[in-house]
Amino acid sequence: MGRKRAVAGAQDLTAGNGLLDRRALLVGASLGGAAAMAPRPGFGAEELSVERWMREPGAPFVGYGQPSRFEAKVARTFASAPGTTGTGASRTPLQRLNGTITPNGLHFERHHSGIPDIDPDTHRLLIHGLVKRPLIFTLEALARYPMETRIAFIECGGNTGALYQKEPAQIDLQASHGLLSCAEWTGVRLALLLEEAGVAPESQWLLAEGADAAGMSRSVPMKAVDEALVALYQNGERVRPSNGYPLRLLLPGYEGNMNVKWLRRIKATAGPTMTKDETSKYTILLPSGKSLQFVFPIETKSVITHPSPGLTVKAAGLYEISGLAWSGYGKIARVEVSADGGKSWALAALQDPVLPKALTRFRIPWRWDGGPAVLQSRATDSSGYVQPTRAALIAERGAKTFYHFNGITSWAIGDHGEVRHVYA
Amino acid sequence: MGRKRAVAGAQDLTAGNGLLDRRALLVGASLGGAAAMAPRPGFGAEELSVERWMREPGAPFVGYGQPSRFEAKVARTFASAPGTTGTGASRTPLQRLNGTITPNGLHFERHHSGIPDIDPDTHRLLIHGLVKRPLIFTLEALARYPMETRIAFIECGGNTGALYQKEPAQIDLQASHGLLSCAEWTGVRLALLLEEAGVAPESQWLLAEGADAAGMSRSVPMKAVDEALVALYQNGERVRPSNGYPLRLLLPGYEGNMNVKWLRRIKATAGPTMTKDETSKYTILLPSGKSLQFVFPIETKSVITHPSPGLTVKAAGLYEISGLAWSGYGKIARVEVSADGGKSWALAALQDPVLPKALTRFRIPWRWDGGPAVLQSRATDSSGYVQPTRAALIAERGAKTFYHFNGITSWAIGDHGEVRHVYA
Repeated sequence: MGRKRAVAGAQDLTAGNGLLDRRALLVGASLGGAAAMAPRPGFGAEELSVERWMREPGAPFVGYGQPSRFEAKVARTFASAPGTTGTGASRTPLQRLNGTITPNGLHFERHHSGIPDIDPDTHRLLIHGLVKRPLIFTLEALARYPMETRIAFIECGGNTGALYQKEPAQIDLQASHGLLSCAEWTGVRLALLLEEAGVAPESQWLLAEGADAAGMSRSVPMKAVDEALVALYQNGERVRPSNGYPLRLLLPGYEGNMNVKWLRRIKATAGPTMTKDETSKYTILLPSGKSLQFVFPIETKSVITHPSPGLTVKAAGLYEISGLAWSGYGKIARVEVSADGGKSWALAALQDPVLPKALTRFRIPWRWDGGPAVLQSRATDSSGYVQPTRAALIAERGAKTFYHFNGITSWAIGDHGEVRHVYA
Repeated sequence: MGRKRAVAGAQDLTAGNGLLDRRALLVGASLGGAAAMAPRPGFGAEELSVERWMREPGAPFVGYGQPSRFEAKVARTFASAPGTTGTGASRTPLQRLNGTITPNGLHFERHHSGIPDIDPDTHRLLIHGLVKRPLIFTLEALARYPMETRIAFIECGGNTGALYQKEPAQIDLQASHGLLSCAEWTGVRLALLLEEAGVAPESQWLLAEGADAAGMSRSVPMKAVDEALVALYQNGERVRPSNGYPLRLLLPGYEGNMNVKWLRRIKATAGPTMTKDETSKYTILLPSGKSLQFVFPIETKSVITHPSPGLTVKAAGLYEISGLAWSGYGKIARVEVSADGGKSWALAALQDPVLPKALTRFRIPWRWDGGPAVLQSRATDSSGYVQPTRAALIAERGAKTFYHFNGITSWAIGDHGEVRHVYA
C-alpha cells in the first residue's frame, strides 16, 4: 500500500467556497478523522458490541434475492392518471443510489396503459412495410442472432419538466430528475433484422409499436438504426415486464418514449407516421405557439445527487460532492462544479469508464465552511456543447413546454445544512 | 443506416468446423432468414394476433419491481450443509443470462452461517491493531468519504472444483461455474481509512472479519489494499444482505471468500492471522500431501455460456457462440474459440468496454454443419498468460484439491444438438 498525503491545505483549493482539486480524490482525501470516532486507548475487538445477528445462524438461501428490509424506503415513487392504475410514471430514487447502474427493480417507468403480462412463447415481432420480405420472429428465433451489449441511459423526454416552472419546485431529486435510469442492455442489432427483411432504399423512417393495451407507437428516423438494439436482457437478466418484457427497442441517446417497450412491430415507412403519441405529446410548444416535433436526442445534462434536496449536510467540514452527467449525443468530456452559484468553477473527476450515451458519475471534494453555498454542475459533451444555464435555455425556448429541459440545476445549502432547490 | 453484407461465404471461415471470422459479427451476421418465418405476401399488422394483454389495461406500478412470472426458472440453485439452512452456497444461472452484469437477486452466495439481518444504525466498522489511532466508523461517517465505482467479478475459490474429477460431471453451467458473478460496486477506498488510522509500517497484513454468526475472517496481504474498497453499493443500490449488507470488503481479482461480507473489523497485523477459514479451507492440497496456502488471485479463465450443457442447438445452421472470460490479474487480452476440440482456434470478438478484473463477454459466429463438434474457449490475459488445458493444469497441480481450477472447459455437441460436458 502506498502511503498517501491527506487533503488539508489551502493549496488544494481550486474554486470559490471550498471546492478542492479533483485529484485530491485520487491521491487521498481523508477527513482527518472528523467523521470517524476514536475509541479510548486499548479498545479492542472484544469491546465491539456483539449484536443478535452474530449470536444465531442467519437466514437461509432463496432463489431470487431482495434488498435489506432496512432499505424499504429505497423505492420508486409513482402517480397514475385519474381512473387508471397504470397510466403514468414511476421515478428512480437517484438521491439514494450511487455508481451509475440502476438496479432493475428501481428503473424508472412510463406506461400508457399499465404493464402487460406477456407470454414470451406467443409473443411475435413483425418486420414489414417497405421491405422485400416481411419477417416474423419468435423469441427463440431472435436468440440465435449475434448479440451486442452496451450500457445506456434512458431518460423520459419529460424528465425535469418542473424546472420550467416560474418558482423552483421544492421537491426531492427523485421527483425532479427521477425519470432517468441506466442499465446494461443486451440484444440483437435492429440493423441485422432489417437487412434480413430487405428494407427498401426509399424507407427513411420506421414505425415502432408496443404490445401494451395503449398500442404505444412512435416514428423513428432510419439514422437511429445505427445503434439500435432489440433488447432481450437488462443488467444480465431478461428485460423486466415494466421495461418491455420480452423485448424492447433500445435507441441509445433518444428520448425514453421512443425506446418502445413490449416491441411487437417495426414497419418500414417513407415518412413519419404521426402517431397519437407524437403529435399531442412529446412535442415542444414554443412561445410563438408553434411546436417543435421530433426532437429526439437527449441534450447534454448533469445534476448533483449528493447532496440534494431532502438530504442534509450535517456539520462544517469535508464532503464529497457527487452527481451524474449524460448526453444523448455522445460522451461526457468534462463536468465543472460551482459552490458559489456559478461565479467560479472547478473540474470534477469523472469515474472511468466514461461511455457514450451512458450515465457518468462525477465527484469533487468540498470543504463546507458552514456558510451559505449554492452548488451547481455543468456538463460539456465530446462535441464541445456546454449545458446551458436555466435562464439561457428559457430565453431561447420559452417555458410553455415541459419537455427536454437540460439547464443547470442549483441546490442551496442552508444555515443548518439543509438542501433546497433554487434558481441561481 | 448503412447497408451491410450478410455473412455467407467460405471466405469468412477462420478455423475448423465452421468457426467464422469474429468481424462478421460487426459487419452483419444475418442468418439468411433461417431463423425467422416469412408470412404470406400481403400479411400486415392486422393479421398479427391481438393477445389478451392488448385488450385490457396492464398491471399497476409497484415501488420495487420483479422479473416476469415467465422467468421464474431463472433462479439461483443452492445447497446447505446437513443440519443448517444457510451454510453453503447458491449459484448464478450463467446459462440463462447475457451481457456481463449479474442482477443483484442472482449474485452467487457463499455463507458460513446464513445471512445476518444487520441493522445499519447499530453496525460499526472498527479499524485497529498496528495503527496509531484506532477508529470506529458508523455508516453515516463512511457516507461522507470520497467514493469510487468499479465493475468487478467475484468468484469463489471453489468454483469449477468439479472439473478436477476423473470423469466429466454431467451438470449444467450453473452447477459447474455458477459461483461467479459480476457487479458495479461503489464504496470508500480502504486505503483512505487505513491512512486515517495511521497504519504502522511494520503492518504487512490485515485481518478482515465479518459480523455473521460464523465470524468469517481472512488474512489479507497489504498489497491488496491498493484496489480494495469498503463497498456500500452494488449495481447502484445498497449492497444486498446476501452480499454483505451494509458493508463488504471488495478485493478485485482475489478469491471470493476474501471479499469479507458484513465487514465489522479490520485489524492491521505483522503477519497472517491463520484463521479457521484459511487453514483447513481455501488451501490447495498438492499430490505431495503439502498444501498451498494463501493462493489469492483468481487465475485467467473462460467458459462458453451459449451453448452449454442443458441447452440444445436446434438444427444445422448459423449460431453465435458466446461466453465469459475473466482474470484476477488484469484485463482479458484475447479469447480464442475452437469447434474441433482444440485442433484449430479462431479469435473471438470481445465486447467493449474490456475492464480489468471484470467479466468480459466474447462472441464468435459459428456455422454448425450438424456433425460432431467439441467447443472450447481459451483466454489470454494482458500479461500474456494463457489459460491452460485441463491436462496441463492437473499435471502441474494434481487433482486432490477442488480450489482454483482454471483449465479449458469442453462442450461436445451431439447428433441431436444436445450439449455435453467432456474432457478433450
